Amino acid sequence: MYLDNAATTPTDPRVLEAMLQYFADSYGNASSMNSFGKDAKEALEESRRKIADFMNADPEELIFTGSATEANNLILKGHAFGAGKRHCHIAVSTIDHDCVLNTVKWLEKQGFRISYLPVDSYGLLRIDPLQKVLEEDVTLVSVVHGNNEIGTVQNIKKIAKMCHENGSFFHTDAVQSFGKLPIDVELIGIDSMTINAHKMYGPKGVGALYIDRTLKITPLIHGGSHEFGKRAGTENIPSIVGFAKAVELREREMDAEGVRLCRLRDRLIRAALEIEDTYLNVHPTKRLPNNVSLRFSHLEGEAIVLDLDAEGIAASSGSACSTKSNDPSHVLLAIGLRPQEARGSLRLSLGKKNSAEEIEFTAQQLAKVVERLRGISPLTHLS
Amino acid sequence: MYLDNAATTPTDPRVLEAMLQYFADSYGNASSMNSFGKDAKEALEESRRKIADFMNADPEELIFTGSATEANNLILKGHAFGAGKRHCHIAVSTIDHDCVLNTVKWLEKQGFRISYLPVDSYGLLRIDPLQKVLEEDVTLVSVVHGNNEIGTVQNIKKIAKMCHENGSFFHTDAVQSFGKLPIDVELIGIDSMTINAHKMYGPKGVGALYIDRTLKITPLIHGGSHEFGKRAGTENIPSIVGFAKAVELREREMDAEGVRLCRLRDRLIRAALEIEDTYLNVHPTKRLPNNVSLRFSHLEGEAIVLDLDAEGIAASSGSACSTKSNDPSHVLLAIGLRPQEARGSLRLSLGKKNSAEEIEFTAQQLAKVVERLRGISPLTHLS
Repeated sequence: MYLDNAATTPTDPRVLEAMLQYFADSYGNASSMNSFGKDAKEALEESRRKIADFMNADPEELIFTGSATEANNLILKGHAFGAGKRHCHIAVSTIDHDCVLNTVKWLEKQGFRISYLPVDSYGLLRIDPLQKVLEEDVTLVSVVHGNNEIGTVQNIKKIAKMCHENGSFFHTDAVQSFGKLPIDVELIGIDSMTINAHKMYGPKGVGALYIDRTLKITPLIHGGSHEFGKRAGTENIPSIVGFAKAVELREREMDAEGVRLCRLRDRLIRAALEIEDTYLNVHPTKRLPNNVSLRFSHLEGEAIVLDLDAEGIAASSGSACSTKSNDPSHVLLAIGLRPQEARGSLRLSLGKKNSAEEIEFTAQQLAKVVERLRGISPLTHLS
Repeated sequence: MYLDNAATTPTDPRVLEAMLQYFADSYGNASSMNSFGKDAKEALEESRRKIADFMNADPEELIFTGSATEANNLILKGHAFGAGKRHCHIAVSTIDHDCVLNTVKWLEKQGFRISYLPVDSYGLLRIDPLQKVLEEDVTLVSVVHGNNEIGTVQNIKKIAKMCHENGSFFHTDAVQSFGKLPIDVELIGIDSMTINAHKMYGPKGVGALYIDRTLKITPLIHGGSHEFGKRAGTENIPSIVGFAKAVELREREMDAEGVRLCRLRDRLIRAALEIEDTYLNVHPTKRLPNNVSLRFSHLEGEAIVLDLDAEGIAASSGSACSTKSNDPSHVLLAIGLRPQEARGSLRLSLGKKNSAEEIEFTAQQLAKVVERLRGISPLTHLS
């Protein structure tokens, strides 16, 4: 039973099916002049068009990368080195992903100006501090659309508007929301957006950066003139074709699936909140359809994850990308939790394979696991 | 008939077979704590061990990337930003790949010291200029092992020894030679090496950087603590498993296959050199087993490629990565060809699917195509 869909999802069999011919048959290098190359190039541009259409962008504004992490690095470092230290000033939210925060921390060490934007107790961006930095000389603002740990969804239309009124570009990391919520980059006013395939039933190892043609960047990966000169490296055609197929399927299926997942999510939350001393980490309405982020007093999230795993339920205590760290989650600290509260967090992220029966079973097991752990937890007696 | 194996190769069906289960069954995030994550992590570390073993490295010294281009960017920028402008001085050969040369050109613009090492008319690194920069304060030397256009193979053991005697690190881009020639990083004295999967019957979208533990670098892609903190991003398990399977197959098959390819290569070269005004661009013995790099007076390589393609033969005029550029190849200029000579180049790169019959057919068609084109070429009458 897999409830870790925010970390990664299984590749849809229809996606894999679409990829297969590009491994052993149409295997050319999209930059080669021969027929094999031309076939590969055609598949590449058809895929680019499909994904760009889905977000209402021009195909020339979509750059394929090896991951969302790379795409976030590309926009941030690409803007920084493109604009130069004297002109560049980047502002990021404190609940952005590690790959945004660690990138700007590195840029800061190189001498670039970085500002950090606080959030409220739901993880929603606080508007006054944003307005304040915008009135300074911020050139690029980056705010995650749907947060990967707690699932809060920002009002990016409002944020983008504020950025534009102050002459600033707006970037969003939409890895968790793309393919779940409708995103029209023109309508919302997004200048740059990070997405990937493996969070939406596509393959791992492929992401993309949408970037408006008015936003100039320096490449992160130099080499040949692939991807409009913005990202060098032989094009990963099987995965790019798979990405486009995943997008095509989400376009058809995400609305109905979203309704179903919201129902399961809310059922799970209701059941979980019946457990004593249990709290929801997220805004009651402004959130992703598939994310359940809870915290349990007197417990460690890791212990709950391990015990649920023993019952056949795969969950997570937070971001998969920071599991090696013993520090409490920066997202939970940013919404104002104390470190010991942050440690008791559990993320259950739903996906299309999950049935209502699985959710009922999870709710029951969760209550049992929490009760058992609290019975033996030394933290219980400290309170 | 595919003679563009230096650009990319078909994925071996046995490689694809090994990958399949990691798309839809064992699809966990290798950084997740649950059972799905543990299975993925196990596949990751088993793959890392296999590839490291093959080159006689420790698994902890192998960093997976999204491409060889990324790996070359990682070592060069990682060393530059790690050492800092005052201490870093990088020397690269003038026949290295665009992704090395364009990376150091960018570093040069950022204020880093870069030296360029000339080669002789075969593309072999000239030793005196190397010795001279080593006696200055070069910190890292990067020389491609097997050149991608002309196929010249460098004496990297000697180059590495010279580097070490002068306190310099040695990096090599072994994309074209890895899996074709035996490479023992300990024996040769390689401190860092770039490889990828798709040039050796593995999938596109995955490469690796071997890096000796004494060589410290700054990450190129910041984020989570994946890959020993040196390359962030969700691990691309299906492709990494495919990479390891491709290595396993090369380990068993490359020696016999190499002998067979050398025979076919030499047969093709002999036949081609019977065509009037035709020259070999490469050293007669120090070269890759599968590369045939020719030039034909009074002709454009692109025209030959297109005409061969019409006869069902996929070839290349040079590097796939620079086909968009109209400039003559930097490699051919570096070995001393005049621009008009460089334009008449053709690369036929063999692979395991090629039969003796295909090579005979190619030799015949090549003679016909060259004759026909020379009959209509305006360049013929200029000489």
